[in-house]
Amino acid sequence: MAQENLAVVVHSPGDLRLENLPIPEPEPNEVLLQMHSVGICGSDVHYWQYGRIGDFVVKKPMVVGHEAAGRVVKVGSAVKHLNVGDRVAIEPGVPREMDEFFKNGRYNLSPTIFFCATPPDDGNLCRYYKHSANFCYKLPDNVTFEEGALIEPLSVGIHACRRAGVTLGSVVLICGAGAIGLVSLLVAKAMGASQVIVTDLSPERLKMAKQLGADFQLTVKKGDSSEQLAKSVHDILGAQPHVTIECTGVESSIQTAIYATRSGGVVVLVGLGSPMTTIPLINAAVREVDIRGVFRYCNTWPMAIAMLSSGKVNVKPLVTHRFPLEQALEAFETTRQGVGIKVMLKCDQNDLNP
Amino acid sequence: MAQENLAVVVHSPGDLRLENLPIPEPEPNEVLLQMHSVGICGSDVHYWQYGRIGDFVVKKPMVVGHEAAGRVVKVGSAVKHLNVGDRVAIEPGVPREMDEFFKNGRYNLSPTIFFCATPPDDGNLCRYYKHSANFCYKLPDNVTFEEGALIEPLSVGIHACRRAGVTLGSVVLICGAGAIGLVSLLVAKAMGASQVIVTDLSPERLKMAKQLGADFQLTVKKGDSSEQLAKSVHDILGAQPHVTIECTGVESSIQTAIYATRSGGVVVLVGLGSPMTTIPLINAAVREVDIRGVFRYCNTWPMAIAMLSSGKVNVKPLVTHRFPLEQALEAFETTRQGVGIKVMLKCDQNDLNP
Amino acid sequence: MAQENLAVVVHSPGDLRLENLPIPEPEPNEVLLQMHSVGICGSDVHYWQYGRIGDFVVKKPMVVGHEAAGRVVKVGSAVKHLNVGDRVAIEPGVPREMDEFFKNGRYNLSPTIFFCATPPDDGNLCRYYKHSANFCYKLPDNVTFEEGALIEPLSVGIHACRRAGVTLGSVVLICGAGAIGLVSLLVAKAMGASQVIVTDLSPERLKMAKQLGADFQLTVKKGDSSEQLAKSVHDILGAQPHVTIECTGVESSIQTAIYATRSGGVVVLVGLGSPMTTIPLINAAVREVDIRGVFRYCNTWPMAIAMLSSGKVNVKPLVTHRFPLEQALEAFETTRQGVGIKVMLKCDQNDLNP
Amino acid sequence: MAQENLAVVVHSPGDLRLENLPIPEPEPNEVLLQMHSVGICGSDVHYWQYGRIGDFVVKKPMVVGHEAAGRVVKVGSAVKHLNVGDRVAIEPGVPREMDEFFKNGRYNLSPTIFFCATPPDDGNLCRYYKHSANFCYKLPDNVTFEEGALIEPLSVGIHACRRAGVTLGSVVLICGAGAIGLVSLLVAKAMGASQVIVTDLSPERLKMAKQLGADFQLTVKKGDSSEQLAKSVHDILGAQPHVTIECTGVESSIQTAIYATRSGGVVVLVGLGSPMTTIPLINAAVREVDIRGVFRYCNTWPMAIAMLSSGKVNVKPLVTHRFPLEQALEAFETTRQGVGIKVMLKCDQNDLNP
Ligand SMILES: NC(=O)c1ccc[n+]([C@@H]2O[C@H](COP(=O)([O-])OP(=O)(O)OC[C@H]3O[C@@H](n4cnc5c(N)ncnc54)[C@H](O)[C@@H]3O)[C@@H](O)[C@H]2O)c1
Ligand SMILES: NC(=O)c1ccc[n+]([C@@H]2O[C@H](COP(=O)([O-])OP(=O)(O)OC[C@H]3O[C@@H](n4cnc5c(N)ncnc54)[C@H](O)[C@@H]3O)[C@@H](O)[C@H]2O)c1
Ligand SMILES: NC(=O)c1ccc[n+]([C@@H]2O[C@H](COP(=O)([O-])OP(=O)(O)OC[C@H]3O[C@@H](n4cnc5c(N)ncnc54)[C@H](O)[C@@H]3O)[C@@H](O)[C@H]2O)c1
Ligand SMILES: NC(=O)c1ccc[n+]([C@@H]2O[C@H](COP(=O)([O-])OP(=O)(O)OC[C@H]3O[C@@H](n4cnc5c(N)ncnc54)[C@H](O)[C@@H]3O)[C@@H](O)[C@H]2O)c1
Ligand SMILES: [Zn+2]
Ligand SMILES: [Zn+2]
Ligand SMILES: [Zn+2]
Ligand SMILES: [Zn+2]
Repeated sequence: MAQENLAVVVHSPGDLRLENLPIPEPEPNEVLLQMHSVGICGSDVHYWQYGRIGDFVVKKPMVVGHEAAGRVVKVGSAVKHLNVGDRVAIEPGVPREMDEFFKNGRYNLSPTIFFCATPPDDGNLCRYYKHSANFCYKLPDNVTFEEGALIEPLSVGIHACRRAGVTLGSVVLICGAGAIGLVSLLVAKAMGASQVIVTDLSPERLKMAKQLGADFQLTVKKGDSSEQLAKSVHDILGAQPHVTIECTGVESSIQTAIYATRSGGVVVLVGLGSPMTTIPLINAAVREVDIRGVFRYCNTWPMAIAMLSSGKVNVKPLVTHRFPLEQALEAFETTRQGVGIKVMLKCDQNDLNP
Repeated sequence: MAQENLAVVVHSPGDLRLENLPIPEPEPNEVLLQMHSVGICGSDVHYWQYGRIGDFVVKKPMVVGHEAAGRVVKVGSAVKHLNVGDRVAIEPGVPREMDEFFKNGRYNLSPTIFFCATPPDDGNLCRYYKHSANFCYKLPDNVTFEEGALIEPLSVGIHACRRAGVTLGSVVLICGAGAIGLVSLLVAKAMGASQVIVTDLSPERLKMAKQLGADFQLTVKKGDSSEQLAKSVHDILGAQPHVTIECTGVESSIQTAIYATRSGGVVVLVGLGSPMTTIPLINAAVREVDIRGVFRYCNTWPMAIAMLSSGKVNVKPLVTHRFPLEQALEAFETTRQGVGIKVMLKCDQNDLNP
Repeated sequence: MAQENLAVVVHSPGDLRLENLPIPEPEPNEVLLQMHSVGICGSDVHYWQYGRIGDFVVKKPMVVGHEAAGRVVKVGSAVKHLNVGDRVAIEPGVPREMDEFFKNGRYNLSPTIFFCATPPDDGNLCRYYKHSANFCYKLPDNVTFEEGALIEPLSVGIHACRRAGVTLGSVVLICGAGAIGLVSLLVAKAMGASQVIVTDLSPERLKMAKQLGADFQLTVKKGDSSEQLAKSVHDILGAQPHVTIECTGVESSIQTAIYATRSGGVVVLVGLGSPMTTIPLINAAVREVDIRGVFRYCNTWPMAIAMLSSGKVNVKPLVTHRFPLEQALEAFETTRQGVGIKVMLKCDQNDLNP
Repeated sequence: MAQENLAVVVHSPGDLRLENLPIPEPEPNEVLLQMHSVGICGSDVHYWQYGRIGDFVVKKPMVVGHEAAGRVVKVGSAVKHLNVGDRVAIEPGVPREMDEFFKNGRYNLSPTIFFCATPPDDGNLCRYYKHSANFCYKLPDNVTFEEGALIEPLSVGIHACRRAGVTLGSVVLICGAGAIGLVSLLVAKAMGASQVIVTDLSPERLKMAKQLGADFQLTVKKGDSSEQLAKSVHDILGAQPHVTIECTGVESSIQTAIYATRSGGVVVLVGLGSPMTTIPLINAAVREVDIRGVFRYCNTWPMAIAMLSSGKVNVKPLVTHRFPLEQALEAFETTRQGVGIKVMLKCDQNDLNP
């Protein structure tokens, strides 16, 4: 095992560094992982740029990264289901307390949860990282490390579509064709949606949506009226969507989501915008259009692995850029510029394969 | 059968009249009812004062009233389950088309539904009224006409608590102690809520809430901070409510509802305010507090009758005033002034009993 | 319009006849249809062979057929959403009363429902047939009449998978690869099942299952132990199914279904066998494996049409034989012998296309 | 702290002993409890009489008891939410592994769960007992130790009614008026059931049911026809139950449960009988009467405490006998004879109060 542990660390707004940290020692219920592939998320870039997201503030240097897969190199004394050499995907949220949320199966809502790269908890964009073995999931041979890393954003899409109740024959509107909108599209299709329409400001992103299976695309222009956009959605579909998955966080897009959704349907809020939002709440209420938030995910890794292994969902096209860990700053700059969809960092010097 | 059909008719904003209308003839699937007790609803007063609610505009004279019970005096040729003499409660919404909403069991969302005293459909505050027999429910001997009339507002409470998922041990916040807040309180208790706290501006209304079983009351003052009010709710309960039922429609109260509700819980919007509303949407989203509207009700009459007949819910204290139909204008003025809770009009000259 | 109405009529056990009946006249809410394609169901054959299914006894001559599609040739006076010339699929069950089941959205459970070819109600294997317009669904141009007819068995699969809660990543066991097992397979896959294993006695049927997308097949031999078969299912899958859809009605297969299903999972009973059944009920109870029946379907036609039109489900390979209506007796004999999967009768002399 | 730890230990069929065991030392996540009140369950008696229940066999001496409450006397180093002196109710099932069931909120189904007095795990009918602090729930001052102990059987009733979907206006049939039938009655009423009918062989038990709030009782005689009993239930209620909670485990009673339940309703199996059961499965299937098992409970203690503390459920009348721990053998003999409902053992020599 190498004695160095190169890591990508944010110190303060604008200050992102490649540093050498000690290799951690796993606790009895943990495993030590040699990291292989780690995707860059918009939140990683946000912590780098602004040093905070809402109430989560970087007060001491924090390793970034939470979309990750690696190989087990050391096993804690109490771990039974994993062995050295196992390839695993990492679920970054690990509940710390057995509170009501955990006991009820909604551990993502536990207020004291550990979460990679949410201050003050370190992430896993580094060479060696230790994690709760119960939240590492063995990958089958036919699922690559990069697919394993992509389970993290894919899980947001799964949780969103599950909370939305997407099912056979659902007509679905997805607002925003960023990484999250695109995984939601993949999942909605896999759950039986018959028609999916995707909106975005960017024609390139919509082209990607089309390639990934969107039935319709709608290009939005800043200043477009939300009610008018909703009408366009109805006209294109010849129907009103049962479900809208909002993946922009932009106020006008949330308004469109409400106006567009069929009575008795569901708007799922994935995108996160400003704290106070002005929306046509009465319109939603009197048509019993439910508004449901999504906070990360829970209980998604096993089903995601099943879908990837059976070939029912193909996330590979999402990876548009790859960099070795040593070029992490360049990789972050690429993500910051919004080029492509998903940038992957390759943390294993001896294996740069997907 | 009397040859006159005295009815309360709104003509235009501010113009409410007692008029004599012809007695209608029931269609094959209808029954003719001699009305007995009809409650006045805030919406009746609103149509009288403003001639409209949102997009529903009084364009031709409309009989008001939709909280009603009466006696069958004539039976359409195709009606099997009702007989002359039956005492019935009236469900005012009758779907006109067998559309997807009706087939799915959510007929309240059917856009073409008939609804008593929603323009252009006439209500039943009159002596004789005909209605779809399928939406008239026979009252057991131990349920009074007035209880039968009160099933209408009670149904709003049932639908709200059902959509909220109130269950054994639920901790519930109810915003507003008007008629709708109070029936929601009764229903929440009957469904197993362990603690219910009610808010209102008016100490008198909160006193009524206490008499009807509220465990705690919180007096709100105009200008109180929503976050502070949420904190007060937590302090009083020693816990966060699983469910909040918003029955004021006031923006600041909706904000309080969101801040107060426990992660993973539900805010049900019953109160209807202004079209655009500014709310802490991100706060709700990242804590997965679902926001669900309520539009009237469906499938509530049978369970309401079961609850009234078994004595599990007591709505009788809600009736604070009674007037004979001939004094309808005085009765409306009483409701307009916000005195008491529910004003009942007695439409049967020979029986003024509850 | 032709003056004759050739129809396939069962008179008594073993007595099936081609007869000429009068062309019916549609009521105000009905449409008259020129039938195009009608599939033969096991129940049709059963009425022919035995004159009864359970308590449903053929007491007077009954037209058979309930898997059907046709063209509107006459429109009742009150019908708004259909026009002469429209191609429609027919939902054979039409509730007669607005009872609690209908109002709740589970109209298939209404005890007084009309159902094609269930005594005493006539079916639609004939040239001209009238039906409630509300239960005729317009077919898009890219959905054939035969696909329209196949929506009936497909609906059984949809209702079964929906009651089972099949979702993303579900591991599914389907017992029996007859028409119903095969449509359940198609639907389970479309709803996101990651692995589906199908059992049957017949290797040919399992070959068909494989062609339609089954991931695994298990050939059952009469006398095989149910516990042993369950173990084989676990071995093949490397996991326990979340959901089992039982489509044989055979007692030993129902036992296998229970033993095989994962704790907390669901067994859906589609197959119908003998009235009393001996099963390992405690095994199911203490593992909270729910046992849910399926009685036909409700609210499936719109989503089925959406799936067929979008190409997400392909039912075409199910049709293995076609006969003109005039050769109906030969067609019934083919079904009776269990050759192929679905036999289609072509009722329109001028159009024998799918 | 006393140096002795008197415990009730089953050694082999028929061999139950009072023995002195060492006082255990709590692990970091555990608390040591001085036991106060422990109820005797039918399963405790069964292990004493037969040395086994199904596959669970007493192979080494086992302390019995799992309906228990006590006081914290020592706190493990990692425990935060409990202090010495706290009065707590004990949830006897503690999951050992963070498997799929635990993560999904259904930890009662975890196959490796620890459970008090299920071999080989020791129970808590003794003076001093250590338990996972996460599964000890603090009792409010107004809830007695005995009420705390009764939360265990009450939880079975809560889980049963919750799985049954009992709600406002539900009509409920409960088969069997033993301890489990009676707690199910209390819970069904608290969740809003409008009518509850209870069956039993014993008129005394039915008298108890009546005292606890049953609306109707039906005395069953051995040999009564199940279909006839179902008809009697319908006649008495004037309706079919939405929900049946089977608490006898007797085959004929399970048959009655199915015949009696309304189409679209639910039969919950709480009673556990012989491994193979013969039932009218088709009758259930074609009426979509779901059959759902109950295995203990999960996530019930907090809501049970809320109900007891708020006075919405009164379990006190269930305790019909009390014995000091020293007279445990006499207490067990009382339970074995089926006298009364619940026998309580008082384990604290200095406090024999409820
Ligand atoms: N709730 C959660 O747990 C969770 C998890 C991950 C991400 N998120 C949030 O999801 C959102 C999407 O994440 P992402 O990584 O895909 O971001 P992204 O920036 O890559 O994608 C957002 C897309 O929305 C488009 N867009 C902006 N305004 C629009 C408008 N008015 N109409 C239509 N499209 C518009 C942008 O062009 C962009 O393509 C972000 O707000 C992020 O914070 C939430
Ligand atoms: N969604 C539906 O189907 C439906 C049906 C019926 C009524 N409603 C709506 O429900 C609401 C309540 O109806 P109602 O008949 O009980 O009206 P109401 O006017 O009698 O009661 C409203 C109560 O809210 C109180 N209130 C006002 N501002 C408050 C604040 N900031 N905090 C706490 N309490 C406050 C008032 O003092 C009053 O007592 C209305 O908005 C009505 O339009 C909706
Ligand atoms: N519940 C409903 O609403 C509904 C609707 C339609 C059909 N059904 C029922 O569904 C069942 C299937 O219908 P179908 O048309 O596919 O019938 P089918 O006879 O074509 O298919 C049944 C299949 O089960 C196989 N089989 C028999 N014993 C088996 C065993 N022990 N293990 C595995 N496979 C076995 C047979 O070989 C056959 O291929 C029938 O019982 C039918 O009555 C029910
Ligand atoms: N599923 C679980 O997690 C769970 C938990 C606790 C208990 N149980 C089971 O629940 C059942 C009830 O437990 P209990 O402690 O109340 O037992 P109990 O023996 O005290 O009560 C059973 C009652 O059923 C009555 N009975 C017997 N045959 C009957 C019939 N044909 N019709 C009507 N009543 C009849 C008896 O007279 C008795 O009063 C037992 O089978 C027990 O094993 C299951
Ligand atoms: Zn992320
Ligand atoms: Zn009203
Ligand atoms: Zn059929
Ligand atoms: Zn017990």
